[in-house]
Amino acid sequence: MKFKVTVVGAGFVGATTAQRVFETGYADVVLVDIVEGKPQGIALDMLESGPVIGTDAQINGANTYEDTADSDVVVVTAGLPRKPGMSRDDLLLTNMKIVGSVTEEVAKYSPNAILIVVSNPLDAMVQHAYKVSGFPKERVIGMAGILDTARFRTFLSQELGASVTNVSAYVLGGHGDTMVPLIGSTTVGGVPVAKLIEANRLEEIVQRTRDGGAEIVALLKTGSAYYAPSAAVAQMVEAVLLDRKEILPCAAFLEGEYGINGLYAGVPVKLGAKGIEEIIEVELTDPEAAALQASADSVQELVDIMAKA
Amino acid sequence: MKFKVTVVGAGFVGATTAQRVFETGYADVVLVDIVEGKPQGIALDMLESGPVIGTDAQINGANTYEDTADSDVVVVTAGLPRKPGMSRDDLLLTNMKIVGSVTEEVAKYSPNAILIVVSNPLDAMVQHAYKVSGFPKERVIGMAGILDTARFRTFLSQELGASVTNVSAYVLGGHGDTMVPLIGSTTVGGVPVAKLIEANRLEEIVQRTRDGGAEIVALLKTGSAYYAPSAAVAQMVEAVLLDRKEILPCAAFLEGEYGINGLYAGVPVKLGAKGIEEIIEVELTDPEAAALQASADSVQELVDIMAKA
Amino acid sequence: MKFKVTVVGAGFVGATTAQRVFETGYADVVLVDIVEGKPQGIALDMLESGPVIGTDAQINGANTYEDTADSDVVVVTAGLPRKPGMSRDDLLLTNMKIVGSVTEEVAKYSPNAILIVVSNPLDAMVQHAYKVSGFPKERVIGMAGILDTARFRTFLSQELGASVTNVSAYVLGGHGDTMVPLIGSTTVGGVPVAKLIEANRLEEIVQRTRDGGAEIVALLKTGSAYYAPSAAVAQMVEAVLLDRKEILPCAAFLEGEYGINGLYAGVPVKLGAKGIEEIIEVELTDPEAAALQASADSVQELVDIMAKA
Amino acid sequence: MKFKVTVVGAGFVGATTAQRVFETGYADVVLVDIVEGKPQGIALDMLESGPVIGTDAQINGANTYEDTADSDVVVVTAGLPRKPGMSRDDLLLTNMKIVGSVTEEVAKYSPNAILIVVSNPLDAMVQHAYKVSGFPKERVIGMAGILDTARFRTFLSQELGASVTNVSAYVLGGHGDTMVPLIGSTTVGGVPVAKLIEANRLEEIVQRTRDGGAEIVALLKTGSAYYAPSAAVAQMVEAVLLDRKEILPCAAFLEGEYGINGLYAGVPVKLGAKGIEEIIEVELTDPEAAALQASADSVQELVDIMAKA
Repeated sequence: MKFKVTVVGAGFVGATTAQRVFETGYADVVLVDIVEGKPQGIALDMLESGPVIGTDAQINGANTYEDTADSDVVVVTAGLPRKPGMSRDDLLLTNMKIVGSVTEEVAKYSPNAILIVVSNPLDAMVQHAYKVSGFPKERVIGMAGILDTARFRTFLSQELGASVTNVSAYVLGGHGDTMVPLIGSTTVGGVPVAKLIEANRLEEIVQRTRDGGAEIVALLKTGSAYYAPSAAVAQMVEAVLLDRKEILPCAAFLEGEYGINGLYAGVPVKLGAKGIEEIIEVELTDPEAAALQASADSVQELVDIMAKA
Repeated sequence: MKFKVTVVGAGFVGATTAQRVFETGYADVVLVDIVEGKPQGIALDMLESGPVIGTDAQINGANTYEDTADSDVVVVTAGLPRKPGMSRDDLLLTNMKIVGSVTEEVAKYSPNAILIVVSNPLDAMVQHAYKVSGFPKERVIGMAGILDTARFRTFLSQELGASVTNVSAYVLGGHGDTMVPLIGSTTVGGVPVAKLIEANRLEEIVQRTRDGGAEIVALLKTGSAYYAPSAAVAQMVEAVLLDRKEILPCAAFLEGEYGINGLYAGVPVKLGAKGIEEIIEVELTDPEAAALQASADSVQELVDIMAKA
Repeated sequence: MKFKVTVVGAGFVGATTAQRVFETGYADVVLVDIVEGKPQGIALDMLESGPVIGTDAQINGANTYEDTADSDVVVVTAGLPRKPGMSRDDLLLTNMKIVGSVTEEVAKYSPNAILIVVSNPLDAMVQHAYKVSGFPKERVIGMAGILDTARFRTFLSQELGASVTNVSAYVLGGHGDTMVPLIGSTTVGGVPVAKLIEANRLEEIVQRTRDGGAEIVALLKTGSAYYAPSAAVAQMVEAVLLDRKEILPCAAFLEGEYGINGLYAGVPVKLGAKGIEEIIEVELTDPEAAALQASADSVQELVDIMAKA
Repeated sequence: MKFKVTVVGAGFVGATTAQRVFETGYADVVLVDIVEGKPQGIALDMLESGPVIGTDAQINGANTYEDTADSDVVVVTAGLPRKPGMSRDDLLLTNMKIVGSVTEEVAKYSPNAILIVVSNPLDAMVQHAYKVSGFPKERVIGMAGILDTARFRTFLSQELGASVTNVSAYVLGGHGDTMVPLIGSTTVGGVPVAKLIEANRLEEIVQRTRDGGAEIVALLKTGSAYYAPSAAVAQMVEAVLLDRKEILPCAAFLEGEYGINGLYAGVPVKLGAKGIEEIIEVELTDPEAAALQASADSVQELVDIMAKA
């Protein structure tokens, strides 16, 4: 049986994720959006690229969830996008409702799916989807650090003139201000990055990574990044479908790991056919541990706000 | 030397073409647009997908043409997009100026490039680019029938439940009303399509293909197709870079072939490292020949309008 | 669930098929051979290429069939290879025993698999596997015309300087002397080949195709072709796993189609997740029909010899 | 211009390297071997897989070097293979003559090529090719540690149930007994491997890596590994052609780096369009430095033997 993947939300991140999964050829895709015609139009356009690309995968657009039944993976990108100048938190309650209602539908039609949440603010949204879905924690995962890591790796690759494949890096915590880069585990060609780049310059690169989303927004003026985010999501989808057991930084529900309990936070996990198959605990320096705790605290604040809503 | 490809126009067709070429890994890309920040933002977003996708290709955004120097292929998608309800011809004179000015810059910095024109109205724009560039005719090519053919193949594949790889079809002439499908050369699994689908139903499918762009526009409500169009362009780019000598329906400058002289028209050409290496003359039925002539006539009208401007 | 494919026979065709399937990344592979150590050594060598290629697919070698359980597709390449100067028929009874015993084991452990037979003499072996397996006819398929077609397409591509993707061709019947090329359905860029190549030269190319296997054997002196044959098998495996519904020339059990009854013969079939989902009946000229019948007659002879054994 | 790659030696490592490069589609390949017919037969068989695989790359076999002219990269696999029980050193003088004569021809026809040497004993052969070619040191590279690293990564991946993509490892020095794994730089998902696997077990895995080639030989009984070795070579070829600037462990001519002077040794290098663009000096522990020196000493012995021959 070929794989089946549903993507909810036909905005740019959702559509480009659908494109990436469709073009692998080994999964059929359903693209769902509330706007009539939009997911159908996008899906038809992609389907019409099939003869040129050489794929016989199927892709359909839908405004309801019947067609998503029995998906292996469901990606939730629904929610209002972040606009320039808007904080992620502004969107909290609106997107909470959207993600909650999407999750109910998804869980009803694909009770065994792995759920990958991309909506913002990420940690709060995945926490809410976990709660609403009733799925076990290993099957509800947030897309978090892969994107930050990809940006950090890109900047280090450019700085050192080395292939992106040679840059290993991990970023924990949340996006942006609460991102926790693990400098000690960051290597280029096996050499610790601290030996290759001076501390000041390295801090500039870390700061650019923190501001990575805003940098794209500032350049585009309208809209935000979607090529790298969708690549990150597609990597998670592939890791699950092909049971790759890849260790990737994702938002996972913690129950004591890293001293955090009952909250989603961005940590390294092993992603395979069962979803999160293991939470990897790496040693943190004291400042890193403090930063991760601060990141968790800020998620807790959002969770508290949602709980009162 | 790795290949170098420039894409002019950072709208959706241009950006997605840039994405497709960048992701092959064997070509560096420059994305040019007049809007400040936009091509830079898109290029940076794509570059940041590199570590996830595993490519070390480079991609840069630019507002001027210095960085495009010595490109192997230049794709021109610049021009105002067609809006719902707007005829292609409305855009003629505006886009003529845009394409003319782009072509001058491109020809100055990459005098040996192969030029692929995608701007609309296609046949008129490629004719104008040919004139402005001063390039030999084999190096100025319009993206035409691959997209129509891809749609036709998709619809036939769906109708018959057969792989898209098994549907061979050729579409001559221009887009839309002036499209000339060669039913006699259209086969599914080697069987002429006329033996598989009744004439009435086949005519419906042909008509749906004619209206293929409008169908997407009607569904999307804002915007038009770009996934299949960019796949078509990327196939042309690959055919040239990898010297594939693929026979594809493209807009080519005819000098007597098919009884047309001094005009661009959509015909099968062999695309390789030198651009159009051969114009393939297939036998046409009388109605097909008449339809192709009508298509050429409508291009001539546009050329005449441009000549007076 | 990732796909699972078993390849029986660790000779060059079997090993290279295993390599091709393993390297797709979406299927785990078991390579079975009677020789102790050989399939394990080959599988380990391939597995060790995984970090370089970037695949997490698993591949194991085995001398027995327990590990093959619940395969989606099983490819049978077992049998003695054809040596220079040896006719395919010499091997009939020896390979009948080998294929019979392999099929019993395969059917026991993977009762729902699609069985693809590659052993020689092909039509007789697939007929025997069909009988021994007790599988429905749509799940027992022989690799036949794809290889001949690939050779024919290669030679035509070279002759005309056109991309291999532009050459459509179908070859019916058996390998070699009993091959039935459908010249009328053979097109290059949509143009019937008879309009592009003179009859005498075309006959030479057909004859070279007929002798395609022998040409490789004569060059290699020891051993026979395996790169193109394994590519053909891998295409069949992919068509089944990804439910591509590709129309490909394969050996199928006919019950009246093409006037042949109760025998395997090389004809165009639609290959999808259920195996042979349709037998495509193309119109044959009288000489083509006669040649296909002659091909079937020669299969019948072998079947009769096997029946008496 | 499409890339051009020559592979000298049509044994299994050479042929499979040719296959891997041919199947990328962006390089034409010439396969050279002294045995008449063999490279032609292999190349024709591969070419005939083109229509199925969908590539228009060209591949030719040759017994002389005229066709190799102006190659971008030349891979030298020529030399007698290592047989079970035979030491690498036994082959020294025989292979020295073979590699020397091949290098002369290669250098004559492709004076600007990057030369990748795979023949055994590796370090001695690449040193000899460097001397004979007269090429600058950055254009003569030996395939060394990528293969050992791939095996080490495979074994660690299996041990920990983690994706091969998550295992970063470097192996310096020569193959086998003189291999120098850098345990301190070896990480799985960013975690130092010493924290994940006990010292005793880790030493077993290191020893298995040292014996990796012998393990395959023992299983196969006749012949030795070629799938993983050819993948390693193909990665080097790609790094050069696509200017990836990948940091990979290769045999490089050292002039003081790592305290070694005038000798080839396996060290991390940055591979790009110019060949070795940088030698990366990683910090070694004292035992690692000593082991690398011992590895260099054993190369020196072979170089001394060759100097007297």
